[in-house]
Amino acid sequence: MTTYQLEVIENTAKKDKPAQDQIPFGQTFTDHMYIMEYQTDKGWHEPKIVPYGPISLDPAAMIFHYGQTVFEGMKAYHTEDGRVLLFRPEKNFERLNLSSERLSIPPIDEDLALEHLKQLIKLEKDWVPKTPGTSLYIRPYIISTDANLAVGPSSTYKYMVILSPVGSYFPGGLQPVVIHVEDKFTRAVKGGTGMAKTAGNYSSGYQAQANAKKEGNADVLWLDGVEKRYIEEVGSMNIFFKIDGEVFTPELNGSILKGITRMSIIELLNSWGIPVTEKRMAIDELYEAYQAGKVEEVFGTGTAAVISPVGELNWQGQKMIINNHEIGELSQKLYDTITGIQTGKVEDTLDWTVEIN
Amino acid sequence: MTTYQLEVIENTAKKDKPAQDQIPFGQTFTDHMYIMEYQTDKGWHEPKIVPYGPISLDPAAMIFHYGQTVFEGMKAYHTEDGRVLLFRPEKNFERLNLSSERLSIPPIDEDLALEHLKQLIKLEKDWVPKTPGTSLYIRPYIISTDANLAVGPSSTYKYMVILSPVGSYFPGGLQPVVIHVEDKFTRAVKGGTGMAKTAGNYSSGYQAQANAKKEGNADVLWLDGVEKRYIEEVGSMNIFFKIDGEVFTPELNGSILKGITRMSIIELLNSWGIPVTEKRMAIDELYEAYQAGKVEEVFGTGTAAVISPVGELNWQGQKMIINNHEIGELSQKLYDTITGIQTGKVEDTLDWTVEIN
Repeated sequence: MTTYQLEVIENTAKKDKPAQDQIPFGQTFTDHMYIMEYQTDKGWHEPKIVPYGPISLDPAAMIFHYGQTVFEGMKAYHTEDGRVLLFRPEKNFERLNLSSERLSIPPIDEDLALEHLKQLIKLEKDWVPKTPGTSLYIRPYIISTDANLAVGPSSTYKYMVILSPVGSYFPGGLQPVVIHVEDKFTRAVKGGTGMAKTAGNYSSGYQAQANAKKEGNADVLWLDGVEKRYIEEVGSMNIFFKIDGEVFTPELNGSILKGITRMSIIELLNSWGIPVTEKRMAIDELYEAYQAGKVEEVFGTGTAAVISPVGELNWQGQKMIINNHEIGELSQKLYDTITGIQTGKVEDTLDWTVEIN
Repeated sequence: MTTYQLEVIENTAKKDKPAQDQIPFGQTFTDHMYIMEYQTDKGWHEPKIVPYGPISLDPAAMIFHYGQTVFEGMKAYHTEDGRVLLFRPEKNFERLNLSSERLSIPPIDEDLALEHLKQLIKLEKDWVPKTPGTSLYIRPYIISTDANLAVGPSSTYKYMVILSPVGSYFPGGLQPVVIHVEDKFTRAVKGGTGMAKTAGNYSSGYQAQANAKKEGNADVLWLDGVEKRYIEEVGSMNIFFKIDGEVFTPELNGSILKGITRMSIIELLNSWGIPVTEKRMAIDELYEAYQAGKVEEVFGTGTAAVISPVGELNWQGQKMIINNHEIGELSQKLYDTITGIQTGKVEDTLDWTVEIN
């Protein structure tokens, strides 16, 4: 690990903490944030924890013009016995560097990033909410900051971490959602940036999502950009299917995000003796299986919701009602187990959690 | 036109202007910038010209996370008789709104934007360089500013314009460039954001461009994202071919940017009685035409270089040497005519220029 002196400037004007039961996602931030700077000749340097507050950038800063940026999303959980746990954070920093590689951003030291994240969360421990279903959302991100309109990689960057307490994703318990299968707009394509967590992948979906919502859908299921036939992800989550007793998920093909919840579900199911088949999955074949009465459960997986059961898929005017709009047994068991491990209620036999001491 | 009171706060600490012959692209900015704010309940409001300087944003501002942003690029030129001309600026604002539509950003009033741009440039008239080949580069852009990590359109935006004096793109006159035909990475695909000028489209090309440069190429020619067969654009320019006496350019298919120089070249050639065929163009068919000795000229078109002759195309290990690495007659004539119109040396029979009074 590269050694750096972490400077901590404590916030003397602490904010009031929000009520824990109904915190809207991603709008409340803690008292501190983390910043580390990059410069070609110095590398990553000057790591600091400072009071949360506005950052000042030149209007020509590259982030505003050419989108050279990557991010991560993870959570810290309070256990009933007062500990604070992270869930596989090393996987997030690994993926951050993979995203950075695709966007020509210099890698960060993953061990250092985790060490400094722990220090930040330790300082903000009181911000980790305790009500069931709540957590502290963690957003690490890197932005390109050269004041330069020439198209090309920046020579300066800021790596930052901000923290946001978040309420339960499904306040009344898991809720199956209605999903539109998108066959006009494209999220990503082979050779593009689909496997990277980078800003441009998200806003490019807004138009499709708005159209889907107008028709009563909660989100969209993206198909591949080439044939508009193969299933990729739902919204910003990965997707799983239980068909005729077997579990399937689209294989990582370069345009699908390598979800950490996705990976954990595959490992967990394997540990239960349930194999998961990762393969190219055609939407028309799914529809055939549906018509044959074989589609038993469908669920999205991601950091925000952990498991999001899908109750209905709308594809080219055809409706697939999944498990009578009810939560499947497997979906519920996976949700209970993963959230249980995350919050210390279920034994962490797979060694996934990292405690903040 | 909606009426707004434009507030002007003059910069009292004016900067020195750079020497005009060797200004690097996009690194020097003028004394003032333009900002207009958007808020859902107010619409676009508070247009202001203020001293050029840093902007302050919440670290959770959506621009840093989800890439909801669009931009434009255009230029102002000094004529020999001391006038300042814009080149088809109304087309840029039209395209800005098209880009915004794709990115779910509220449209701006195009007439108002042009009127305010004129006032900004009038104030910065001394910053428009006079040396042949130089100009004042204009960068209008919109960024999403809600401090909110929920994925979705922002409710607040900033529309800004910054200005940068730029030197001659080819200081020694036009220079044919060597281009790599990219068959691994993808810039854009049908249903994606390729037709929009949005940040994510640019940084997604850095890795391919870096690989191409390592092998001695100046830039890449993008192929379609589906078959990796059909020609799209070169770098961030459109591309034209003169084959066996005829002029061709890839048709606008939803993943190619609708270039204003591209449009102007088609109109100019038509006005000369030279038809331009817009069609889907396969790289293997281009190679066949090359082997038959029929590829006479290739050139990129864009605001930065106007015309960029291509001297060599490298595709899957095969070299296509175009016109013996020399500037084609048509490329030179188009360059001379368009830059002539832009700088008032050639009569503007097509009514393209807009004078700043």
